[in-house]
Amino acid sequence: MKIAFVMGSDSDLEKVKPGVEVVKSFGVNVEVRVISAHRTPQIAEEFAKNARENGVGVIVAAAGMAAHLAGVLAAYTTLPVIALPISAKNLDGLDALLAMVQMPPGIPVATVGIDAGKNAGLLALQILGVNDENIATKLQTFKDDMAKQVIAKDKRVSEQFNHN
Amino acid sequence: MKIAFVMGSDSDLEKVKPGVEVVKSFGVNVEVRVISAHRTPQIAEEFAKNARENGVGVIVAAAGMAAHLAGVLAAYTTLPVIALPISAKNLDGLDALLAMVQMPPGIPVATVGIDAGKNAGLLALQILGVNDENIATKLQTFKDDMAKQVIAKDKRVSEQFNHN
Amino acid sequence: MKIAFVMGSDSDLEKVKPGVEVVKSFGVNVEVRVISAHRTPQIAEEFAKNARENGVGVIVAAAGMAAHLAGVLAAYTTLPVIALPISAKNLDGLDALLAMVQMPPGIPVATVGIDAGKNAGLLALQILGVNDENIATKLQTFKDDMAKQVIAKDKRVSEQFNHN
Amino acid sequence: MKIAFVMGSDSDLEKVKPGVEVVKSFGVNVEVRVISAHRTPQIAEEFAKNARENGVGVIVAAAGMAAHLAGVLAAYTTLPVIALPISAKNLDGLDALLAMVQMPPGIPVATVGIDAGKNAGLLALQILGVNDENIATKLQTFKDDMAKQVIAKDKRVSEQFNHN
Amino acid sequence: MKIAFVMGSDSDLEKVKPGVEVVKSFGVNVEVRVISAHRTPQIAEEFAKNARENGVGVIVAAAGMAAHLAGVLAAYTTLPVIALPISAKNLDGLDALLAMVQMPPGIPVATVGIDAGKNAGLLALQILGVNDENIATKLQTFKDDMAKQVIAKDKRVSEQFNHN
Amino acid sequence: MKIAFVMGSDSDLEKVKPGVEVVKSFGVNVEVRVISAHRTPQIAEEFAKNARENGVGVIVAAAGMAAHLAGVLAAYTTLPVIALPISAKNLDGLDALLAMVQMPPGIPVATVGIDAGKNAGLLALQILGVNDENIATKLQTFKDDMAKQVIAKDKRVSEQFNHN
Amino acid sequence: MKIAFVMGSDSDLEKVKPGVEVVKSFGVNVEVRVISAHRTPQIAEEFAKNARENGVGVIVAAAGMAAHLAGVLAAYTTLPVIALPISAKNLDGLDALLAMVQMPPGIPVATVGIDAGKNAGLLALQILGVNDENIATKLQTFKDDMAKQVIAKDKRVSEQFNHN
Amino acid sequence: MKIAFVMGSDSDLEKVKPGVEVVKSFGVNVEVRVISAHRTPQIAEEFAKNARENGVGVIVAAAGMAAHLAGVLAAYTTLPVIALPISAKNLDGLDALLAMVQMPPGIPVATVGIDAGKNAGLLALQILGVNDENIATKLQTFKDDMAKQVIAKDKRVSEQFNHN
Repeated sequence: MKIAFVMGSDSDLEKVKPGVEVVKSFGVNVEVRVISAHRTPQIAEEFAKNARENGVGVIVAAAGMAAHLAGVLAAYTTLPVIALPISAKNLDGLDALLAMVQMPPGIPVATVGIDAGKNAGLLALQILGVNDENIATKLQTFKDDMAKQVIAKDKRVSEQFNHN
Repeated sequence: MKIAFVMGSDSDLEKVKPGVEVVKSFGVNVEVRVISAHRTPQIAEEFAKNARENGVGVIVAAAGMAAHLAGVLAAYTTLPVIALPISAKNLDGLDALLAMVQMPPGIPVATVGIDAGKNAGLLALQILGVNDENIATKLQTFKDDMAKQVIAKDKRVSEQFNHN
Repeated sequence: MKIAFVMGSDSDLEKVKPGVEVVKSFGVNVEVRVISAHRTPQIAEEFAKNARENGVGVIVAAAGMAAHLAGVLAAYTTLPVIALPISAKNLDGLDALLAMVQMPPGIPVATVGIDAGKNAGLLALQILGVNDENIATKLQTFKDDMAKQVIAKDKRVSEQFNHN
Repeated sequence: MKIAFVMGSDSDLEKVKPGVEVVKSFGVNVEVRVISAHRTPQIAEEFAKNARENGVGVIVAAAGMAAHLAGVLAAYTTLPVIALPISAKNLDGLDALLAMVQMPPGIPVATVGIDAGKNAGLLALQILGVNDENIATKLQTFKDDMAKQVIAKDKRVSEQFNHN
Repeated sequence: MKIAFVMGSDSDLEKVKPGVEVVKSFGVNVEVRVISAHRTPQIAEEFAKNARENGVGVIVAAAGMAAHLAGVLAAYTTLPVIALPISAKNLDGLDALLAMVQMPPGIPVATVGIDAGKNAGLLALQILGVNDENIATKLQTFKDDMAKQVIAKDKRVSEQFNHN
Repeated sequence: MKIAFVMGSDSDLEKVKPGVEVVKSFGVNVEVRVISAHRTPQIAEEFAKNARENGVGVIVAAAGMAAHLAGVLAAYTTLPVIALPISAKNLDGLDALLAMVQMPPGIPVATVGIDAGKNAGLLALQILGVNDENIATKLQTFKDDMAKQVIAKDKRVSEQFNHN
Repeated sequence: MKIAFVMGSDSDLEKVKPGVEVVKSFGVNVEVRVISAHRTPQIAEEFAKNARENGVGVIVAAAGMAAHLAGVLAAYTTLPVIALPISAKNLDGLDALLAMVQMPPGIPVATVGIDAGKNAGLLALQILGVNDENIATKLQTFKDDMAKQVIAKDKRVSEQFNHN
Repeated sequence: MKIAFVMGSDSDLEKVKPGVEVVKSFGVNVEVRVISAHRTPQIAEEFAKNARENGVGVIVAAAGMAAHLAGVLAAYTTLPVIALPISAKNLDGLDALLAMVQMPPGIPVATVGIDAGKNAGLLALQILGVNDENIATKLQTFKDDMAKQVIAKDKRVSEQFNHN
């Protein structure tokens, strides 16, 4: 089962990449696509309709401004769709956040933070990890590694400051 | 040539009605529909694709929250789409406004104020009035009538206060 | 595998209930809890640490204001945590939304709309439905039913207005 | 019939130009003006009053901050006025957006996104295209070209990432 | 020299009245008008152009939503214009505040708080009081009276609570 | 050592009271005052200058809108000043929050949530509790009681829902 | 009669200067001061109390963040105080704007746009110009000159674009 | 008694440092730590639980985005916790501010301005200074020095501008 990353424009690629990479580092397959809800709506429709049978388990949809991509995909699938709001030149991504998270009753999307590509990938892994012990174990290891990094930084900062 | 009013939910009807009524009062035909970008996306697609040949000149799309309806319709037509953001229980319609107005390059919508149903209808009439002298004349009359009403109110308020 | 609904205060119950009910209507088990990230932090910790082995597949965390509950639970589990921001007396839930969705890299939560209890439940079902064909089928039926309801409303509204 | 672009300050020119250029690329005539609602209000009034008889079909009004230009022009014409909010040093254009889109009942303007000059031009073309088959055809071609560009980008990105 | 209160709609009257009343209580003459920047723009122009020679010293302009009234009047006079933003159904007057206060260089208005009708009147009095000793003295008395009222309230509250 | 509650207007009393009451319930003395930063500035100055020698340990300053009270008091004392932003008719207290919390370097205030009177009182107690073991013990008891209440609510809700 | 410019920090000087310069260009005297509402509150008090008798006609108060300076000065004088909100590193001056404009009933300030130093100076001149024909005449000339500049820019831009 | 500075990430260090330095300059001991509410939650818990007995008098907690650190620490201690919201790439720290200041009833934190590290340190000193005359005296000296600096700047600016 693979994780699909769909972005509305290839200019979003830099912000999506950390998510793609964390998924790949877990040994999970990805499909990365540029599909616009507004410019290629029929491709969006086809993609979403066929995603489950094409082996997609979770869709990450990244878009900025009046970000409709996640909602448009969610309209055509029962798979979980992760909405990744992307900041553009103005408004710091608040427009994309609200345009994604405030979905009407019946068609939810799972929104992560603005420009939070890595977290989008990790959330997709957590979703697959509900039923995949291998991924679940790796997620725990990932969590433990993060803790170790924080502890190492704590050590460095403590040494620098705490000898009153 | 008629003006279509599409709303994402029939709960938006009360806010759309003033627009429908002003259009009817101009003797222009309307088509009023409930079509959800997320719950009946294929009907939205069909509607927008066929709108021009079905005699629609302008589409008004009313929706609240993560309001995708206007953008989804605009994706499938070259007719002008007027976006009417509807306020919901939280955020006073700011979510719908941003989700509508901040469309990506290439697919514009024409956004009016939050809950501004009447203005949506008037803007649609202005668009038809570009090439329809009859509508243009009526718009001027409408404008003149508004002025008269303000002048009447001015008279009443002046009489009440201005005898220092 | 069950879906857990955790709320920071029992005053959030009315907004969480539609999510609980939609999950139950799918025949999926729920666990509903009142656990405060700030007042019973150790219970929160224990709950999250043991959730997976207690048969929880997805956690829905509902909280208002400086809503930390979802993040605190996510800190202690690798299960997906759905963040449900609840509006309080001021700020329309924008505080809770930002306090939930803007998680730091490494610890995502899946945020749904403000007060969107039903969508939280549906998203949880979508997550379980990735690997559960029975749920997936029911989700598709749920989607089809929603479409039918919109179509019925469209019919009623069309009949009311469209006989120019 | 031509499309007029009016800007409140020549410092807005860079953001208006993409709209002018797209209109010219359609073979439609433009009139580009610098008229300030506050510094040359009488010129604004004259311009708007005579626009229709001067062969203008649609007016694009670009302004920043307390952006009154679109509303002031709309007060003096029944032509559709497209409001193009321009971001200034502070507030990312949110001030201009609200100062434009929230017009009172009776005097609508058609607001596009912040700094969305190209979309303003395209919306103006869509409005003329309601009754001009030539423009309508070119708009469809424009739309098809955009789709092709997205598909080409999709191909490039797919090739880069999707060989798990 | 009188103070003019201009409102965009007579629905703003209740919020303007406290300003009118405080001015009258100072024995200063008022002129109260309903003039719409968008519906009766030429009356607005005439009013502003002639205000100084008609004996107006300060203009208070009250309007809501995309509140252009203060700016439109300021465009036609060198008198100080006090902008009084009025809250409407949505957005709590933030739209009117930004549409008023963010005037472009060269055409300032003097903005007071949202719905702050009384303060608009007092500011107008302060402006006249720069050169009018009688008004200045009354302003000082007004200030002293306010202080006395606060002191009286302080006494009541102190007595209620401070006998630990 | 007592805790002073100062409010800018007696209309804030209802929101301040829960703070006063929690402090009294701890057996700590209070002084409750109505002092306006703008209407009785000299009383504010005197109060703050003499607070420490009058036995005040912490000052809670409650105010709404352009809430200057906390900052004005902090300018005249080295005691900690707790800023309690009060919501008014518009803007939900966001104005008061920003007007309080964003103090310039050198003159901090300790801001609590909007309308969070009880938390203001508790924070004052925590500050006194740094050096007062009696208060510290009571704070721990208070915390334990809150936990018990949450646990009781959890029990009730669990019994209602969790028998799948 | 002179115009006083008071700023909370000398780092605001660059944004205040355009106001000082426009006042000087009108031949009106200025007094420019650095006075902090929080760091030198007693100097602020003395300044405001004595301003009228020291020949000040209008006070411009510039400050950023939790900008209390205008309100603090207004508390001690009946002269009009112009509030000039200054943007700081975060929030684009929205904090200063709200902290200034939302003054409580009884103590108004006259707020201009964020960083709008020149407009603050012009508004001060307009206030003096209510009773000073010389200033009023110069303001009209200033207005006429602005119009001429816009007309010249309009000519340049028109020549560049309008030869379809 | 020492002041602890805890930050969620060592990338916050530059903004925390001014607070550490001002505390050290008062001769008060510090403990500086990197502890993440989400990545090392158990260390956070241990730190907060033991802070009082480890000689900590006040905790400063710095974090950005969905800033939970202050709340998580406050959940485990009765010591005052100062919340220092840190601005990140988007939203200018408004997310962190709301995620910190809007704590639920019963668990307050003392929030200072966005990125206001120095003020966090000064507030901590003020809290210790409630019962520590030595610190209180130094705070007064600090205040006096700030006043002197403002007076010196006032002198420089006055000399530059005030010789009309």
